[in-house]
Amino acid sequence: MNYVMGYRCTLCGKEYEANLMDYTCPACGPKGILDVVYDYSQMKKQITREYFRDNKNFSMWRYGPMTTVVQNSLLERTLRVGWTPVYLANQLGQKLNLKELYIKDDGINPTSSLKDRASVVAVVKAIENKFDTICCSSTGNAASSLAGNAARMGLKAVIFVPDRAPAGKLTQLLIYGAKVISVAGSYQQTFELSAEAISRWGWYNRNAGINAHLVEGKKTVSLEFIEQLNWEVPDWVAVSVGDGCTIGGVYKGFYDLLMLGLIDRMPKILGVQAEGCCPFVTAHRENKPLVPTEENTLADSIAVGVPRNPVKALEAVKNTQGEWITVSDDKILETMKLLGTTEGIFGEPAGVAGLAGVVEAINKGLIKAHERVGVIITGNGLKDINNGLKAVGEPLRVEPEISQLEQILTN
Amino acid sequence: MNYVMGYRCTLCGKEYEANLMDYTCPACGPKGILDVVYDYSQMKKQITREYFRDNKNFSMWRYGPMTTVVQNSLLERTLRVGWTPVYLANQLGQKLNLKELYIKDDGINPTSSLKDRASVVAVVKAIENKFDTICCSSTGNAASSLAGNAARMGLKAVIFVPDRAPAGKLTQLLIYGAKVISVAGSYQQTFELSAEAISRWGWYNRNAGINAHLVEGKKTVSLEFIEQLNWEVPDWVAVSVGDGCTIGGVYKGFYDLLMLGLIDRMPKILGVQAEGCCPFVTAHRENKPLVPTEENTLADSIAVGVPRNPVKALEAVKNTQGEWITVSDDKILETMKLLGTTEGIFGEPAGVAGLAGVVEAINKGLIKAHERVGVIITGNGLKDINNGLKAVGEPLRVEPEISQLEQILTN
Repeated sequence: MNYVMGYRCTLCGKEYEANLMDYTCPACGPKGILDVVYDYSQMKKQITREYFRDNKNFSMWRYGPMTTVVQNSLLERTLRVGWTPVYLANQLGQKLNLKELYIKDDGINPTSSLKDRASVVAVVKAIENKFDTICCSSTGNAASSLAGNAARMGLKAVIFVPDRAPAGKLTQLLIYGAKVISVAGSYQQTFELSAEAISRWGWYNRNAGINAHLVEGKKTVSLEFIEQLNWEVPDWVAVSVGDGCTIGGVYKGFYDLLMLGLIDRMPKILGVQAEGCCPFVTAHRENKPLVPTEENTLADSIAVGVPRNPVKALEAVKNTQGEWITVSDDKILETMKLLGTTEGIFGEPAGVAGLAGVVEAINKGLIKAHERVGVIITGNGLKDINNGLKAVGEPLRVEPEISQLEQILTN
Repeated sequence: MNYVMGYRCTLCGKEYEANLMDYTCPACGPKGILDVVYDYSQMKKQITREYFRDNKNFSMWRYGPMTTVVQNSLLERTLRVGWTPVYLANQLGQKLNLKELYIKDDGINPTSSLKDRASVVAVVKAIENKFDTICCSSTGNAASSLAGNAARMGLKAVIFVPDRAPAGKLTQLLIYGAKVISVAGSYQQTFELSAEAISRWGWYNRNAGINAHLVEGKKTVSLEFIEQLNWEVPDWVAVSVGDGCTIGGVYKGFYDLLMLGLIDRMPKILGVQAEGCCPFVTAHRENKPLVPTEENTLADSIAVGVPRNPVKALEAVKNTQGEWITVSDDKILETMKLLGTTEGIFGEPAGVAGLAGVVEAINKGLIKAHERVGVIITGNGLKDINNGLKAVGEPLRVEPEISQLEQILTN
């Protein structure tokens, strides 16, 4: 049971029935990414604060009726995605001179990234629609989360990755038994090859720019965040941006809650990109359409020169009176260490870029000391040890003798 | 508030008051590891099935009153450890011809291993006792979990690691801001140097063989497992064994539940060691005391030639009519792939060794098809990508051309 009324094209605005079989707008083609339209007046009757008070499902499926999934029996068998921890970051907040800073650690998911939220929905939709193979192209986390979630549900997965993907993420794919196609080319070429293969072999398409269901999975990060904050909306929520789908999902979650009357205002969304790959920031600053850019950052999960979801991402910031900001790779590495040292959370480079953006926004006077700020850490630092090592120094090496140690520790 | 009556020495059996300040038995010295003794008759009044039914704390602190922690206000500020998922492993169960196989994925913890359960207790006890520095020596997970949990609570951490520790684990330590001492020597030498330093500088000691509180944290994995199985006890629970502290904790959890009348029998505990480092298995087979052995296995977390907790480990198996078993490194790697492919769970080598032991025990006729089996995956595979890569093949590499792909996929 769900409350889907239909789909609306993010480009031309045309609406379609809930039984539409196309991934994107039949009128606009692949760029006509669809947005799911819900019957909030009906949803409102079920989804109340009381509903959550009595709900004992501590996974993202506690929000199942707010998504597009249909077969509830499938949800009991998936990996347990979501209900990741939210921490009041006392030490880090103090260091940044922020009164209230909340960190949601979405690296604590079954395959260690936020992307599990989208992949588990994709897997369920594929099975609901009787596919036996699911496919995506990804710089990493979408892929590994798809591989893991597909494995758990007995669905075959074919994954296209650009050959620069970090070893940690590749290993995950192979451990989960996916058929991995490593493409000697850019993310764009990888994406196009996967699209061709999907249409040739009739697989289910998990590419986030194409598939409208994925944003509906990702939005659960916002639903959780707000519920875990006891429905008190932060002033800002920061998230790193690559393809634009995650920030689109973050926005959709807040939008749903507003439509349901569960919150009475939206947080401002801070979209954070890496300096070396920031098509959204450039487009916003120059008030022009997105243009393809280089993919020159160590934060591989957000190194997307041709974002697939421009409309949803731009609207997320615009509709919340939020802001776009860039951070350098050096600042990203610094932030990895800062977050680990002050709060015991280890995020991958793209995972902490949102937080690096908050630091930058504070320095620029954009975020004020009295504001309540939420940050989503999108992926686990263990995914990308090589960059983790860049962020830290070497350990102290000693022979097993206390005298040597004494010298070191008393210096 | 807790129900600690005192401590009992696992060697000489002598009992001590709850206010004992020594880590180990004053009569037996460092080998006299203590066991915490609870007042179960009092604990019983609070800890009932109804208590859990109404408990909304979904972390290991839902079992806080069953541990040795005192200051409840501290518990709200720790990393969120525990309440990791339990999966009915349908596909894997079928493959192994087991009717009911349950996997508890303890890699889904804040620093990605079961050790978080012990470290968070250690950190709380250190703060309760007004220490400002905590120390341990560890092959990896105990250390990284201590570093993360200490960082979150503003406690300084000094960590001794043998210099063979995998990069993933080392990186975690450094990201969390611990002072890391990499010792050119064996685990035994590393341990001894840490012991000397702890006594020299008066730090809190988190070494699991020494500190009786740690088992009380680790036991929460069993408490959870049984509650998540709706109090239905499996016939077997398998866990990998290195130092002996984890299996000791697993046992203690079941023991507590039995004493409280929450279960009416214990599962048989299957202690699994790597062929290349199996002092417990040898001692059991030859019915002799443990002798130091080589540390010759890729499963670094259980490569412990001189286990610190022999008594608790041996009793865990003996008192439950369980069994000891070894697995080869090849089987461990095979099991990593098997678990990933069938269930979407990625465990590190030591993490899946328990499951490899189950496969072995089935082959030997020790575990029967009709039995209910539980397995604890003790650590996340992302911790040790190098061994993950050994367990899988290479991805298929292609140029971005559909024709090349067609050749590969239709072969």
